[in-house]
Amino acid sequence: MTTFTQVTVVGTGALGAQIAFQIANHGIPVCAWDVDDQAVAAAQARLQSILTQYLADVGDDHRKAAEEAVARITFTTDLTSSVRDADLVIEAVPEKLELKQKIYNHLGEAAPDNTVFATNSSTLLPSQLADATGRPERFLALHFANHIWQQNTAEIMGSPRTDPAVYDNVVTFASEIGMIPIPVRKEQPGYVLNSLLVPFLNAAAALVLRGVAEPETIDTTWRTGTGAPMGPFEIFDIVGLRTAYAISSTSHDAGAQLLAEYLKTNFLDKGKFGAESGEGFYTYP
Amino acid sequence: MTTFTQVTVVGTGALGAQIAFQIANHGIPVCAWDVDDQAVAAAQARLQSILTQYLADVGDDHRKAAEEAVARITFTTDLTSSVRDADLVIEAVPEKLELKQKIYNHLGEAAPDNTVFATNSSTLLPSQLADATGRPERFLALHFANHIWQQNTAEIMGSPRTDPAVYDNVVTFASEIGMIPIPVRKEQPGYVLNSLLVPFLNAAAALVLRGVAEPETIDTTWRTGTGAPMGPFEIFDIVGLRTAYAISSTSHDAGAQLLAEYLKTNFLDKGKFGAESGEGFYTYP
Repeated sequence: MTTFTQVTVVGTGALGAQIAFQIANHGIPVCAWDVDDQAVAAAQARLQSILTQYLADVGDDHRKAAEEAVARITFTTDLTSSVRDADLVIEAVPEKLELKQKIYNHLGEAAPDNTVFATNSSTLLPSQLADATGRPERFLALHFANHIWQQNTAEIMGSPRTDPAVYDNVVTFASEIGMIPIPVRKEQPGYVLNSLLVPFLNAAAALVLRGVAEPETIDTTWRTGTGAPMGPFEIFDIVGLRTAYAISSTSHDAGAQLLAEYLKTNFLDKGKFGAESGEGFYTYP
Repeated sequence: MTTFTQVTVVGTGALGAQIAFQIANHGIPVCAWDVDDQAVAAAQARLQSILTQYLADVGDDHRKAAEEAVARITFTTDLTSSVRDADLVIEAVPEKLELKQKIYNHLGEAAPDNTVFATNSSTLLPSQLADATGRPERFLALHFANHIWQQNTAEIMGSPRTDPAVYDNVVTFASEIGMIPIPVRKEQPGYVLNSLLVPFLNAAAALVLRGVAEPETIDTTWRTGTGAPMGPFEIFDIVGLRTAYAISSTSHDAGAQLLAEYLKTNFLDKGKFGAESGEGFYTYP
């Protein structure tokens, strides 16, 4: 028996759908909410492509179990009923503060008092949303990464008002659904992974912007020097250059501003978004 | 026929001895200089342990070739005669500006006019040494990493006065001796690898110092999130905590100063220097 036995995922975009699949794939029924029938249809299609990608990664002998997992996910456009029986609600709607606050106001009214709320937000702090939930002690961040079954870290970060027992339960639950729990002990922007990635990628970009070395040279250096499978510009392409632009253009750091300009001029304006678009620092088949 | 056919390595410490071995192991005779008989004896012992480590890495069927390589290295304590026939002199004496300048003054007098000089300095810029060589256009940095045959990058960085043809010859030579040449196009402290490593390691340390996460958690996050074989604190232990302290304590950055203090109190003062001493962030057999 898992710590939470009925989970609702609110928002079924790229990551929301993967979260629903990962949980269902560990035997837990998931209710998936999105805003209208069109969004639900898109999510159902997305689940099929997740299934394909997952089986390509883990092998076709997992097909039956994975198809059962998909069948364990029910869809709804009714937010109130979606959380009526939920032990845990994981919110993965777009990164807009007001949208999330509005959703949490609604969820706070609709869900049972003891339901735990977790946001997958990458950019907002739990403290910015805690009041809107009406249950700050039962609210925290549970942050997943894309390609969830492979890059299976789940970063858990509370606000100062999160109940430590709730925090611990979510850490346990993360393990139960096949994630490696990453306890983040103090609320801060960027969690752990991005707190390392952002300065690392900025340092790499600064070398290019200052004309010190070419991206390929820098990647070779990092791979050879540290044994890593990817250098910083290969990571840029995977993260996506639009995401990198979004992060750097909103930074107050002068170097990050230069990077944003460089990405826009040399890549975004030319339709080069990284691996997803077939071209970024490198080209992809 | 390699670009340079007679090489002198000046200074036979940990890296100087590996450089001599790497070059000799590619068929080129090497003259190795150090300051006195005791230093030469130490270098000869060091070569034997390099041989052992190298064969453990690449397999004992390379023994004959590797022993021939060692035999291709001759030792001397006479700096003048050591460079009389050298096409290329690689300097790897301790990182003291005045010592290096004095050595280059001597080398500049003793070596043929067309001999190229390369410093392995990690911390000094070629510009700081160029005048002392008396041949700034034939002088640059050729920077190797420890465990040279595995972490086989050679970063090549000129001063603004380095002749581009000399630069290109050294890039070619780096390939000829089994290195991956990393052309650094603009003189700057830290070359490429350390320009990435230092901000990366500082960011990781900042998370620990601010109480956000434990070293093990951070390492797990990085390994899982990026597929790298080592996280930042595993890298700290390999780099060595005395080296990390030396770099951070001389930085003007406030975060680096905090890191230096943390390393001193929690590690150096307790004799924990990282992997080399058996204990750092982790323990080693």
